[in-house]
Amino acid sequence: MELTNALQWRYATKRMNGQKVDQELVDEIINAAYFAPTSSGLQPFEIIAVSNPELKKEIQKVAFNQPQIVEGSHVLVFAAWDKYTDERIDAVFDHMNTERGLPLDTTDDYKKGLKETLFSWPEEQQAFHTAKQSYIGFGMAIAAAAMLRVDASPMDGFVNADLDKLLELDKKGLKSTALLTLGYRDADNDWLVDLKKVRKPKNDFLTEIK
Amino acid sequence: MELTNALQWRYATKRMNGQKVDQELVDEIINAAYFAPTSSGLQPFEIIAVSNPELKKEIQKVAFNQPQIVEGSHVLVFAAWDKYTDERIDAVFDHMNTERGLPLDTTDDYKKGLKETLFSWPEEQQAFHTAKQSYIGFGMAIAAAAMLRVDASPMDGFVNADLDKLLELDKKGLKSTALLTLGYRDADNDWLVDLKKVRKPKNDFLTEIK
Repeated sequence: MELTNALQWRYATKRMNGQKVDQELVDEIINAAYFAPTSSGLQPFEIIAVSNPELKKEIQKVAFNQPQIVEGSHVLVFAAWDKYTDERIDAVFDHMNTERGLPLDTTDDYKKGLKETLFSWPEEQQAFHTAKQSYIGFGMAIAAAAMLRVDASPMDGFVNADLDKLLELDKKGLKSTALLTLGYRDADNDWLVDLKKVRKPKNDFLTEIK
Repeated sequence: MELTNALQWRYATKRMNGQKVDQELVDEIINAAYFAPTSSGLQPFEIIAVSNPELKKEIQKVAFNQPQIVEGSHVLVFAAWDKYTDERIDAVFDHMNTERGLPLDTTDDYKKGLKETLFSWPEEQQAFHTAKQSYIGFGMAIAAAAMLRVDASPMDGFVNADLDKLLELDKKGLKSTALLTLGYRDADNDWLVDLKKVRKPKNDFLTEIK
């Protein structure tokens, strides 16, 4: 399978060479996240795709000055809903039913049960749930980049609150969850490029119950 | 790109036909999660692959009796570390350095800083962090299944505590995070199979800052 090879090819690129990634490839990578499945199809996250050089510099400052952020071509910021609301959930189901040519009340029973569950959680747990959904899309985007042989640096170590403020995510009811910088490796200067890819022993990862 | 087509082909399969998925394909799907990147390469999650019919019935009981769990061939249970520990982190770095032929103390400074960060978090936040990493692998496995044209039903709606007890995950310091049932669609009986795949309007998903 092409994905298996792609996952062997990819690595968490630490230095990039400044080469621009074609918009068509960026679009394909974003689309992989867009079509990722999410719990009840709510898609409780968004992507902010930053290629503006000045803004990338500002993002770098809240991400421990990692060089690939400015050396890369695009920074995809994954940002999840801070909480579930009636308005957000209704919009998803109204859109879904409309697109499927179904009456808007088709999913009322399901939606009622879903809201009861989601609203029973403290807001922190709701944000945890939306963040996890964003990571499904994050995984898909990493897979897509590798398959397109676009280098990528996935990051979840940054100062979330500062990034939220910088991008005014709080005003949109979003919280940043992860970053994916896209670009092309600077093989001469990346200490990680030639190191063996290591995963823990398979026995420590997989248990089969047949 | 092959992944784009695969993501259009897949859907959250609600009914499966009992056909077994070849072990080779299951292995490829699990490997996609195994090679998924994780924060600092810690791989803080495992997979329990259940094909045992009796155990699938027990899992079904703690997952709202969803039929695809027993109609499917394999249930992949994603389970993340309940917290970070010295032992777990040391094992990862020792293995990594050994595999790379480097002295064990190569990563001591990095590891010290990493532990300071991770151990500064309450246990709940640590479990949140490990769960998110498991969702990267979850996304990769969903992508792999679709590319192999194996149907899959991703689920995060189940009674986690009951599943943890059933599989004795608590004894291993693990918490279940998600389920992925693999199998083949029962198109005649699945109400979802012919419904249009709907995603929210692209404008509500993507913001580009150029």
